[in-house]
Amino acid sequence: MDYIFKSNERSSKILDFHHPHQLKEGLEGFSLDLPDHPEPLEQILVDCRDTLKYGVKTGHPRFFNQLSSGLDLVGLAGQWLTSTANTNMFTYEVSPVFLLMEEVLLKKMQSIVGWCEEEGDGIFCPGGAVSNLYSLLVARYDFYPEVKTKGMCALPRLALFTSEHSHYSVRKAAAVLGMGSDSVQVVPCDERYPSPEGLFVRGQRGSTKEQKGNGLVPFYVNATAGTTVYGAFDPLTAIADVCDRHKLWLHVDAAWGGGLLMSRRHQGKLQGIERASSVTWNPHKLMGAPLQCSAILIKKRGLLQECNQLCAEYLFQSDKHYDISYDTGDKTIQCGRHVDVFKLWLMWKAKGSEGFGSQVNKCLENAEYLFKQLQRRADFKLVFESKPEHSNVCFWYLPPSLRGLPPGPDTNRRLHEVAPQIKAKMMEEGTTLIGYQPLGSNVNFFRCVFSNPATQHEDVDFLLEEIARLGSNL
Amino acid sequence: MDYIFKSNERSSKILDFHHPHQLKEGLEGFSLDLPDHPEPLEQILVDCRDTLKYGVKTGHPRFFNQLSSGLDLVGLAGQWLTSTANTNMFTYEVSPVFLLMEEVLLKKMQSIVGWCEEEGDGIFCPGGAVSNLYSLLVARYDFYPEVKTKGMCALPRLALFTSEHSHYSVRKAAAVLGMGSDSVQVVPCDERYPSPEGLFVRGQRGSTKEQKGNGLVPFYVNATAGTTVYGAFDPLTAIADVCDRHKLWLHVDAAWGGGLLMSRRHQGKLQGIERASSVTWNPHKLMGAPLQCSAILIKKRGLLQECNQLCAEYLFQSDKHYDISYDTGDKTIQCGRHVDVFKLWLMWKAKGSEGFGSQVNKCLENAEYLFKQLQRRADFKLVFESKPEHSNVCFWYLPPSLRGLPPGPDTNRRLHEVAPQIKAKMMEEGTTLIGYQPLGSNVNFFRCVFSNPATQHEDVDFLLEEIARLGSNL
Repeated sequence: MDYIFKSNERSSKILDFHHPHQLKEGLEGFSLDLPDHPEPLEQILVDCRDTLKYGVKTGHPRFFNQLSSGLDLVGLAGQWLTSTANTNMFTYEVSPVFLLMEEVLLKKMQSIVGWCEEEGDGIFCPGGAVSNLYSLLVARYDFYPEVKTKGMCALPRLALFTSEHSHYSVRKAAAVLGMGSDSVQVVPCDERYPSPEGLFVRGQRGSTKEQKGNGLVPFYVNATAGTTVYGAFDPLTAIADVCDRHKLWLHVDAAWGGGLLMSRRHQGKLQGIERASSVTWNPHKLMGAPLQCSAILIKKRGLLQECNQLCAEYLFQSDKHYDISYDTGDKTIQCGRHVDVFKLWLMWKAKGSEGFGSQVNKCLENAEYLFKQLQRRADFKLVFESKPEHSNVCFWYLPPSLRGLPPGPDTNRRLHEVAPQIKAKMMEEGTTLIGYQPLGSNVNFFRCVFSNPATQHEDVDFLLEEIARLGSNL
Repeated sequence: MDYIFKSNERSSKILDFHHPHQLKEGLEGFSLDLPDHPEPLEQILVDCRDTLKYGVKTGHPRFFNQLSSGLDLVGLAGQWLTSTANTNMFTYEVSPVFLLMEEVLLKKMQSIVGWCEEEGDGIFCPGGAVSNLYSLLVARYDFYPEVKTKGMCALPRLALFTSEHSHYSVRKAAAVLGMGSDSVQVVPCDERYPSPEGLFVRGQRGSTKEQKGNGLVPFYVNATAGTTVYGAFDPLTAIADVCDRHKLWLHVDAAWGGGLLMSRRHQGKLQGIERASSVTWNPHKLMGAPLQCSAILIKKRGLLQECNQLCAEYLFQSDKHYDISYDTGDKTIQCGRHVDVFKLWLMWKAKGSEGFGSQVNKCLENAEYLFKQLQRRADFKLVFESKPEHSNVCFWYLPPSLRGLPPGPDTNRRLHEVAPQIKAKMMEEGTTLIGYQPLGSNVNFFRCVFSNPATQHEDVDFLLEEIARLGSNL
């Protein structure tokens, strides 16, 4: 507890950076080596202290580096209790309470998405990428159940659609599932949004489900609700119309944007999500649940079980004395499954739905505040002039040497090198942490994201001052 | 702490069983419902207490139900610290210490498997089933790298081999990866072991890698080191010979048996594992690490990265100021990855390799003790007359009404119903917990497994007495 409060004070550093070779060589009695003989308890305590010392304080109010940040104390207590219970989500026999909590959480999330009482199935997964993989797996099975026994060779060559700004896990899932990444048709974005027109034109091929043009049969569209970098929302209703027309599976990757559904003020941005056949939603992102906590929601009930079950009688006995529909082990591609639900359930008890709503609103208010600060400063430039939709705010820092230069390839080339240099200094100093990346024609820019409710306006001010300080002589 | 010690005392119950509908209706102020408004702190504490109360004590010395049991206090402390750090295994930037610990652990495990210094790659995964999936994924890519972009349609129809007693996750992985479960050639077992002869005959088709007979091209063999039910070890050396001869990928699923490598007395049972191209090894089973902790080890370096990387520049920037080879996020099919390494690293510090060795020896001694008790009792019958190889001991309880009956279908039919009835009573009473299942021609029998070092001979005695008591009037 002492560690938690001290290390997340504003005055403490976010990280005490060392290069891999430095940590490997060992620092002041901290050695990574695994011994043959036991080490004394005092050394174990020192090891624990040092592990935290050289780690990164993701709960620090000035940590803006990832979509997951913050350290919710009730969630943390939930994690500790989960660890103490040390069981897994396999059968009701070993996990009665947690399996029921999973059901309650999934039903709640499904009703928030807008599905009716009779619809909805799902599972908590090890992260959003795996949730997206589940959606593609189940969609494929729904269209072509023979794939389970006969494999991809028995199917026509499939096409799936996703925008160029969508998460790379969709492409990865296509490779893993044996469809090949070439089956992924990347829909270009107009600045931030995929053009439904582009999707529509490509979707036409789906109308007959026959091979035309490149010979692929469309069956699946991934729409993103909250892209990783820009925090943009794909036009869900327009995409759902295309999917309806061509009978395509609509998956909404709301890993990052799903949290907005908790806020009455912002939930409208996900209008149309209720028409999805599946949804990825990561409470470990905007809702601040400790890592990991990610759900895949599937509208059609029973599909997940049918798709994945193998009925190994030696693991899932059918002659048990209780209702075995809670033995979820055969619904999944894992076997044992980590308990990721209790922390979220406990947080929900402690905050209520409305508490999550306020938390989300606060994160988005911080983004608006940052946006306004950037608008009025000459040493920064926004990537987009319009108000952020999510808590992502993207911008360049313009060091003195670059201000007032005419736009063009040369300026861009120099601007591209600014963010990495500032980031390197920032990691060395450990005062704050923010990510950067290039995207499309935009050279390296900073992406600030807010998901830690502990972050205040003063932290936003600090971030800009710190970037300006570290970049002042570039 | 108080909970941990009290709940794992022998005098306390392992579970306080309630049917799903009872827990759902709510018990004495324990409601699973998710509120709109926050609940008071006192209620949250009650919720925590009740969650533990209605859960299962997997750390109890009389819990014999799963391959994972026990509650290692250093491991638990490691979990708590991990939760407090709340980061993920994605980039060195957010997980410097944990990524280095992962490297150290993987190298150690690879050297224990018997690979040389230059060999070895791997990753910690969410469970053994996912580890097995990784092995199949990487093996496929090694033989047919075009699968990543072009999918299974560009490949010949593949065959993989696994024994009938192997874990069902191999078949599941084949379905997920788009090979189809029909690609899995199930090698029959002679009681406990797959016949290398059977494998050899089937493997012949691999010698030319051409389609013959059923038109499948063999490329992969899964051998099991420690089967789930019997704890049997496939003849690894003989299988490795077949794989060498026909240039097949040899995967060894040592999820359960890997722990034996820590014991000088028992490691010989895995002779030949050093010839594997990949190995699954779950420290959360026999080594007692808290859930989850599972590794996939891959002999050929670089393959995992090549197979899975998509180089999303917006997530994995190549212009960072540190050695980005530790940014493992693109090696995996997850994106964010839970930190499963610290608890194992800390346990290793606290026990040393030798501590794990003694712990494993103790589990196997308990199995031998149980075996000897069963040999001398007339009310129990062993499934196998020979000494257990692993900590699995399989047996039937013969209630008075079945003793002395001639063997035959009628006796078998009645015997089949004994274990489920005893198990149902056992769950209601909550005094101990053991699993049962049928397998092949063996009707429902109990499988006892030892992985909790807290278990003593008195607990083994108790188990037998309890089964006899609960089954005395059947």
